[in-house]
Amino acid sequence: MNIRSVVKVLGFLMLVTAGCLLLPALVSLLYREGDWVWFLASAGIGAAVGGITLVILRAAPDLRVREGFAVVAFGWLCVGLLGALPFWLSGQIPSFTDSVFESISGFTTTGASILVDIESRSHGVLFWRALSHWLGGMGIVLLAVAILPLLGVGGMQLFRAEVPGPVAERLTPRIRETAKLLWAVYFLLTVMEIAALMIAGMGPFDAVCHSFATMATGGFSNHNASVGGYATPAVEWVIIVFMFLAGANFSLHYLALTGRWRVYLWDEEFRFYSSIILVTTLMLIVSLAAIQFYPGWQDTIRHALFQVVSIITTTGFGTADYLLWPPLAHAVLLVLMTVGGCAGSTGGGIKVMRVFILLRHAKLELKKMLHPRAVFTLWFNGRALSPALQTNVLGFFLLYMVVYIAGVLILTFGGRDIITSVGATAATLGNIGPGLGLVGPASNYASLFHWEKWLLIMFMLIGRLEIFTVLVLFLPGAWRRS
Amino acid sequence: MNIRSVVKVLGFLMLVTAGCLLLPALVSLLYREGDWVWFLASAGIGAAVGGITLVILRAAPDLRVREGFAVVAFGWLCVGLLGALPFWLSGQIPSFTDSVFESISGFTTTGASILVDIESRSHGVLFWRALSHWLGGMGIVLLAVAILPLLGVGGMQLFRAEVPGPVAERLTPRIRETAKLLWAVYFLLTVMEIAALMIAGMGPFDAVCHSFATMATGGFSNHNASVGGYATPAVEWVIIVFMFLAGANFSLHYLALTGRWRVYLWDEEFRFYSSIILVTTLMLIVSLAAIQFYPGWQDTIRHALFQVVSIITTTGFGTADYLLWPPLAHAVLLVLMTVGGCAGSTGGGIKVMRVFILLRHAKLELKKMLHPRAVFTLWFNGRALSPALQTNVLGFFLLYMVVYIAGVLILTFGGRDIITSVGATAATLGNIGPGLGLVGPASNYASLFHWEKWLLIMFMLIGRLEIFTVLVLFLPGAWRRS
Repeated sequence: MNIRSVVKVLGFLMLVTAGCLLLPALVSLLYREGDWVWFLASAGIGAAVGGITLVILRAAPDLRVREGFAVVAFGWLCVGLLGALPFWLSGQIPSFTDSVFESISGFTTTGASILVDIESRSHGVLFWRALSHWLGGMGIVLLAVAILPLLGVGGMQLFRAEVPGPVAERLTPRIRETAKLLWAVYFLLTVMEIAALMIAGMGPFDAVCHSFATMATGGFSNHNASVGGYATPAVEWVIIVFMFLAGANFSLHYLALTGRWRVYLWDEEFRFYSSIILVTTLMLIVSLAAIQFYPGWQDTIRHALFQVVSIITTTGFGTADYLLWPPLAHAVLLVLMTVGGCAGSTGGGIKVMRVFILLRHAKLELKKMLHPRAVFTLWFNGRALSPALQTNVLGFFLLYMVVYIAGVLILTFGGRDIITSVGATAATLGNIGPGLGLVGPASNYASLFHWEKWLLIMFMLIGRLEIFTVLVLFLPGAWRRS
Repeated sequence: MNIRSVVKVLGFLMLVTAGCLLLPALVSLLYREGDWVWFLASAGIGAAVGGITLVILRAAPDLRVREGFAVVAFGWLCVGLLGALPFWLSGQIPSFTDSVFESISGFTTTGASILVDIESRSHGVLFWRALSHWLGGMGIVLLAVAILPLLGVGGMQLFRAEVPGPVAERLTPRIRETAKLLWAVYFLLTVMEIAALMIAGMGPFDAVCHSFATMATGGFSNHNASVGGYATPAVEWVIIVFMFLAGANFSLHYLALTGRWRVYLWDEEFRFYSSIILVTTLMLIVSLAAIQFYPGWQDTIRHALFQVVSIITTTGFGTADYLLWPPLAHAVLLVLMTVGGCAGSTGGGIKVMRVFILLRHAKLELKKMLHPRAVFTLWFNGRALSPALQTNVLGFFLLYMVVYIAGVLILTFGGRDIITSVGATAATLGNIGPGLGLVGPASNYASLFHWEKWLLIMFMLIGRLEIFTVLVLFLPGAWRRS
């Protein structure tokens, strides 16, 4: 690996992030709050570090594929660290660990928070939290379209800027163009949601912040009680719709916007994603209605659907404390946390596409028992998957499970109860936000030990960067000079 | 499938089981208890049903491989149903559901019990419970050696009566001979344990019953407090040693008994199995010692080791209520429940060999990231595993997970809390016995609803028969006439 090439790109990323830090400074000035100076200072530090790095390493050679892993993993880390500076410097989050936790949680679109009283924060801080989600979401779109397929990470090759559907038609041949198109979709949907939320009665500032958090499937809210704090069914319905869209493959939206909306019907992943949501919501409705948890059908349906969509898309917004729901809810939500959104969305988790392939694989292996000499082909969206790609997806799943189990063992070894340990690992590795137990929707991550927070920060990065990208850096071979 | 051929074999199995029912009748007579008549009656019913079936279907053609699945699954079920008769007829277990639960739990070597007061049962009943374990264990040895490799079930092809080790040397060419040899080892180890337990101070009846339960990794005890009820460290150490042996590959023991004890050092599965036990026991010791749960080191070490070995071998004997232990214990034991014993042992679960292959597979997929064009080979015991065999093992793992998750969802949907649901599913699917929550080591399965007991009965069978064997019968193709 050529470390100089990697550091050069990191310098560039710092510079871009420094530019973005000017926006919360502007918000702070507009609201006549004093912390604009800390955003400006952080931007200055980022620009200085990034600029100097670029000047020193201007002669470093261009990146090659092998360096991609390091760039992605350390890139997200560096941006997250720079993003933590204003929280820490301004004193709005006094602990450095907490500042980094909040910032990485933002950029990985996790939405796990250590803030006990969100509503008393300045507008600048709230805006920066939301913007970190939105920027993180843009990064993920780029990752899914351009970088991960190139690196060959766990089946993301399937999403090589191709349109799923009966006829595999390239969205556009050039990756740069594709990324721009999908960013345009992302931007357009964000604007649509801002408008819809304002029509539903939300103020402009909250509408912008919540739209950023929704489209990135992040989950930071400006309210202590999350979306439930607004107590407006119309707002909740708007957010349900946009969370659902943010958890689906963005290239489908692009095609739909250009008139080819039938792709939604053709795409196997989208159909499976919709089916999971439908079935689990029905299960929750039955389970909630059986004990008359909510007075009316409308509330029951809305709360069940909101929570299912919020969790499977890995957004993590809340309108209800699902820990008070019947036991089924815990099991269902834990499964959904692990499934996650669709490939090519901003959602985290294992991804619906992979779960679909894994289930189909299991079924084929069962069929092989009856026909040992037959050759079976695994089809996905009208395309035969090579055995190499199948084992790649299976490898992804296994590594996900290994990290998951390791997380639970480490946290329980430190003395945490098993429910909190499982919930915290699932919620950070899957980039959801709220977990179970002590880190449930009605509480937050503030009470954890410092070492636990750093562990969860690592899980957020590992999960967000599709496991392989980070774990591969632990192989000695990754650091060999070439 | 030729159903007549299948039923013919089932008739034969009934006849054999009827013969075995004479043994508890004899025990009952020896102890001058009245229920010998019910054992005899059950034997008579079994003999009649089996005999008539054999006479009617004497002309049915011989079995072919495709019918193997049905024979194995329905065979275990029929034997379990016949074994439940004496419990039910004698009135010692008044409920039919409970009788079947106890019997299937015995024959699948699970050891999950619905008996609230075990000590007040007759000697005949206690002996029949233990014998059902021991017979079930013999069935599993046959299954592992002869039947599953033939059916091609999830990597059991690797255990085709071959000696793992640097030189793959066949134990013996003929399956029948191999089964006999391994049964001899099984018998010999049982006799050795009976002697050891008696030397350690246990009475002859208890020694026989506990040895049957140990070698089959079953877990039924004659004491309400399980092995802990005897409160003799020597007894516990003897049982630790024999549980450990019962959870290892029996062909290793055969080779060791014939002087080739170095196979233990060569065999990768055995080494991994020993390492897991060592590491998890150390973790538990640290975790227990940190809060001074037991007064001295001796108790801490013995209890930790006993519980780890009891759970990973899927025996399920208890000397302590691990639900009172620190949270780490719950997480560790839950993981060990899922790992299970070695292939070719009487233990259940996913099996150490498969976990080993899965982990190695995941590591290779990670390495492939760095060397996309390189071809990697997965080695196990000096043998290159074909890609087909790898995907077969992965398919097994996926199906195990699917059944696991389905179990938790169904139980929580019925209103059970999530810890009990996870514990009960893990403990029956892995054929352990005691689970977590309401079905923990200090309680039993008596309080569950009838439908839940039937669900868990199905999980015991699915787990014991290596998932594929049962699930394949749900494919329409399995029933097609050929």
